[in-house]
Amino acid sequence: MSERPELAKLGHISMVTPDLEKSVWFWSDVIGLEEVERRNGDVYMRAWGEREHHSLRLSAGKEASIDHIGWRTKRPDDVKAFGDILEAQGIAIEWLEPGDEAGQGRACRFTSPAGHRYEIYYDVEKPLAPVDTRARLKNSLYRFGDRGVSPRRIDHVNVCTTDPDAGSDWLAKTLGFKTREMIKGKDGRVAAAWMAVTPTVHDIAIQADADGLPGRFHHVAYWVDDAAAVLRAADLMMDRGIEIFGPGRHGISQAMFLYTIEPGSGHRVEIYSGSYLILDPDWEPVVWHGSELDLGIFYWGAKTGASMELTTPF
Amino acid sequence: MSERPELAKLGHISMVTPDLEKSVWFWSDVIGLEEVERRNGDVYMRAWGEREHHSLRLSAGKEASIDHIGWRTKRPDDVKAFGDILEAQGIAIEWLEPGDEAGQGRACRFTSPAGHRYEIYYDVEKPLAPVDTRARLKNSLYRFGDRGVSPRRIDHVNVCTTDPDAGSDWLAKTLGFKTREMIKGKDGRVAAAWMAVTPTVHDIAIQADADGLPGRFHHVAYWVDDAAAVLRAADLMMDRGIEIFGPGRHGISQAMFLYTIEPGSGHRVEIYSGSYLILDPDWEPVVWHGSELDLGIFYWGAKTGASMELTTPF
Amino acid sequence: MSERPELAKLGHISMVTPDLEKSVWFWSDVIGLEEVERRNGDVYMRAWGEREHHSLRLSAGKEASIDHIGWRTKRPDDVKAFGDILEAQGIAIEWLEPGDEAGQGRACRFTSPAGHRYEIYYDVEKPLAPVDTRARLKNSLYRFGDRGVSPRRIDHVNVCTTDPDAGSDWLAKTLGFKTREMIKGKDGRVAAAWMAVTPTVHDIAIQADADGLPGRFHHVAYWVDDAAAVLRAADLMMDRGIEIFGPGRHGISQAMFLYTIEPGSGHRVEIYSGSYLILDPDWEPVVWHGSELDLGIFYWGAKTGASMELTTPF
Amino acid sequence: MSERPELAKLGHISMVTPDLEKSVWFWSDVIGLEEVERRNGDVYMRAWGEREHHSLRLSAGKEASIDHIGWRTKRPDDVKAFGDILEAQGIAIEWLEPGDEAGQGRACRFTSPAGHRYEIYYDVEKPLAPVDTRARLKNSLYRFGDRGVSPRRIDHVNVCTTDPDAGSDWLAKTLGFKTREMIKGKDGRVAAAWMAVTPTVHDIAIQADADGLPGRFHHVAYWVDDAAAVLRAADLMMDRGIEIFGPGRHGISQAMFLYTIEPGSGHRVEIYSGSYLILDPDWEPVVWHGSELDLGIFYWGAKTGASMELTTPF
Repeated sequence: MSERPELAKLGHISMVTPDLEKSVWFWSDVIGLEEVERRNGDVYMRAWGEREHHSLRLSAGKEASIDHIGWRTKRPDDVKAFGDILEAQGIAIEWLEPGDEAGQGRACRFTSPAGHRYEIYYDVEKPLAPVDTRARLKNSLYRFGDRGVSPRRIDHVNVCTTDPDAGSDWLAKTLGFKTREMIKGKDGRVAAAWMAVTPTVHDIAIQADADGLPGRFHHVAYWVDDAAAVLRAADLMMDRGIEIFGPGRHGISQAMFLYTIEPGSGHRVEIYSGSYLILDPDWEPVVWHGSELDLGIFYWGAKTGASMELTTPF
Repeated sequence: MSERPELAKLGHISMVTPDLEKSVWFWSDVIGLEEVERRNGDVYMRAWGEREHHSLRLSAGKEASIDHIGWRTKRPDDVKAFGDILEAQGIAIEWLEPGDEAGQGRACRFTSPAGHRYEIYYDVEKPLAPVDTRARLKNSLYRFGDRGVSPRRIDHVNVCTTDPDAGSDWLAKTLGFKTREMIKGKDGRVAAAWMAVTPTVHDIAIQADADGLPGRFHHVAYWVDDAAAVLRAADLMMDRGIEIFGPGRHGISQAMFLYTIEPGSGHRVEIYSGSYLILDPDWEPVVWHGSELDLGIFYWGAKTGASMELTTPF
Repeated sequence: MSERPELAKLGHISMVTPDLEKSVWFWSDVIGLEEVERRNGDVYMRAWGEREHHSLRLSAGKEASIDHIGWRTKRPDDVKAFGDILEAQGIAIEWLEPGDEAGQGRACRFTSPAGHRYEIYYDVEKPLAPVDTRARLKNSLYRFGDRGVSPRRIDHVNVCTTDPDAGSDWLAKTLGFKTREMIKGKDGRVAAAWMAVTPTVHDIAIQADADGLPGRFHHVAYWVDDAAAVLRAADLMMDRGIEIFGPGRHGISQAMFLYTIEPGSGHRVEIYSGSYLILDPDWEPVVWHGSELDLGIFYWGAKTGASMELTTPF
Repeated sequence: MSERPELAKLGHISMVTPDLEKSVWFWSDVIGLEEVERRNGDVYMRAWGEREHHSLRLSAGKEASIDHIGWRTKRPDDVKAFGDILEAQGIAIEWLEPGDEAGQGRACRFTSPAGHRYEIYYDVEKPLAPVDTRARLKNSLYRFGDRGVSPRRIDHVNVCTTDPDAGSDWLAKTLGFKTREMIKGKDGRVAAAWMAVTPTVHDIAIQADADGLPGRFHHVAYWVDDAAAVLRAADLMMDRGIEIFGPGRHGISQAMFLYTIEPGSGHRVEIYSGSYLILDPDWEPVVWHGSELDLGIFYWGAKTGASMELTTPF
């Protein structure tokens, strides 16, 4: 195939947690994801508006970590094509057969030069919602609002690494992410980049790690439909003893945010809404510098908090 | 006691339903009230922000009806004083001893000249929420948002009668309700009145019955904290197969509304928010006439619907 | 160029109005668009979040009509490529030179087989907002909220024609629109189709004309960021004597809507928010039939209204 | 008159500002109040939902200060009765004749033992809104939403003093305010009290001054109808270069807040919504202690900020 392979979207995140039961409680009862399947001790979950088999896999493990971040391609052949490109770069590929990950077809897993483990796949099951929780509208999946925050879908991931300039360049050149907004340091190098294969501001953000380490994870974000739902999430979480950071509005992305720490694994989770679509084909990345970051990072609402500097693995 | 007795607030409504199980399901799972107690087959419920024992009592019965509407007085002695006033009018009083209605002290019940059965009481238990559903904020009661619409409190009732001009006059002179807005017919008589003992626009509305009958009931309203919660209620109900009328905004009261029919009993229920407080001591009732009602009743949103003309008992 | 040309987005709509002054008042003071330029009597406007020169052109004329609907391509060469494809179909092309339409480069205009006049272009000016109305965030354009409804951007158009089955087929095969949701009649033919070149549910909807005529226009929609902004638009419009239909929620698209009639031209305008993104590469169009349309068209809120059946030209 | 006089509501606040033009710009263009009248250099303003002549008076002066806070009584005779009570306490009274303050009848002004200058009045003009800005609904005053934040009405004031225990006691015993929530120090004395003559949580809060001084002012709050309007206020202010603290939710009062500094005078202003009504006649003040204040003051959202410690006069 001569056509360049393309990613379609962020598909799922696979987390390892030292307290699986508490993590499942958080994602099911506080966030309100639906459990799709348990296999080999792993719990597969998705949000009420998601057709694909899972957007979250939880696995038990000694230490919290991100097993992998899964990207779905635009075409079936793209999986093999990406594999070829990665191998040509000397990156070690792990090939998964259909069903190795529940609900999913053939896939390749690998570690990016920035140290993050990604998975690329196309084939995925699209199970219907069980009849007793099925949405009434035929263009939806599950009834919304049965439990907790009740986000519609996964939105983006945010990862940290030693050299985000190189890391974002690799994401652009190898996986086809376009940079929509970025922070540049005084040295003219990228300190953080918001990148997407979709018309959103970002499917992934990559930034400098506070400890200068590669392969770290900052947060995964789930989407709610409007600002009122972000405020409701704040009330729900606080009332249930889940501490939060926010809500507020980011300058970069213009989105409403609320962060919390998933209590089983310690991974950071964002509840996210708003932002803007980039439909212009000639979008020029918006570049933020130095003092502009006071507006760029936290435009209003919660502005500081030591908890925001933690990344996993710890 | 020489001081005129006063009502403090709408306390509760006591409904009879031919399908108690379905009514309890609606109020608990769809609306999200908390069950406080069952006694003698009656189910006592309240909303997450209510301190008093119950704002809703459900009783099984052959036909749907409103057993009574309960008003709490400002002072303990007001119960007896209201009883004296009513007896002096020749109205038959039924005195209840403490505990005859669960959680409640001595009370008097009677039927108003417009045909509605009311109850007047002061003493009432204020049970804490169970520990596992208790709010984290000490000025609140239950955690909010555990199920369904999750209103904060009961708001008002709307009743129908043969002669709302006489009916509203009696509510004003005998029970002390102030008229905040009203509809006047071409004959100069009150066709509907929004009346309150609190600074809200209404704790009760009384209007002409479509069939010209006394003692009928149009709806009971529960309060949610903002318009976003009314929209969320619409989505939740529709997704669960509960048909609705609205949402929209009333002109009179300026409030957001959404109506539905409680599926066990057929009684109409409103989810209500917004409106305005009347703190001015010299408020003059706002009078709506004829063609102004197009704006007054349904300012925007759902405007017509045969379902809105039904009252109970049928 | 062997690559198939592609549209990137809906760019603008060009309306003819018999009362230019009233139309400008509506779009500027009620909706809150910003005036970018006047040239040859035409008024060019855009929303606060739009970078391109205009999303609306208003021209004076004897009768209300849509002069054209402008689509921007993904690449500069796509304009010529689309021209070639259209000419090969025997469609008459009108070529515009840069500046023939203010702020815009070379473009081709033509009438589709369904009778709608479209324009295809790539080059477009991106003027900054004037300093005194410029947004504080560098990823935005104008300050938001200075006047009226204050939408962020144009969202979609809805057109009517004699044969929407053929019309939607042509939009798919010639212009590359993908069908996301559709209504099918008893005869198995498309009665309405929601189609997009972006990941939204629709950039254009095409439906059967109530009078069976080709080339008719139902509405243009502008996007606001959330449901609260749709409700605010309802209050703003009603308070200013602008009659509305809605707000409510569509089943198809799951979006919040509010419709009004632009008072200068009589064209219908929608204020729109919510809906969902389609990021799955293998999306199967959702097909609605017969009785499902009660939920599909107006899920809740305003449900009926003769005004919704009007199309232009009258 | 033997009946105890009663206050009905917070009527207005009268501010002195060193930069009258900038203060008028802020209140008119950013907040969106309507100018009612200018007299003797003073500017009288009110919000779109207010019937009385003004809720804000701005006067030019060398230094920022609060000239007085005006309370309206329930009955005409209450003004004289309060004057008698205050004189009996040895408090010096300044009597104003009708028109001494524009739009207002006979009033008494005095300084409370806590050092705050109050005014008590009953008679007040209720001018209609000018025809071109008049609300369409006859139960409203001005069209809403013409400019800026567009609050409905004044909500409360917050004042600081040396001894809030004594200060709140005096407000209760002399002016009839009921305490709804309070903070108690380790010494068992009131450190802050939220007090009301209406069923809201507070018309006034009184707290310990950071510098231990009497007669200081913390903020005046204006009410918007829901949380979405608070978020919109944050966006509007930030976009116009007005720095804010918040939005967030208070634990005490459960209300959404946003604070800013009025740029002409330096006085703090709050945009406020939500909270709860207290209709129970036997409400027991909610008492917050020590570590509970982390939830009580700022439940979520913005949590810290040096700007929140400033009071006026400086």
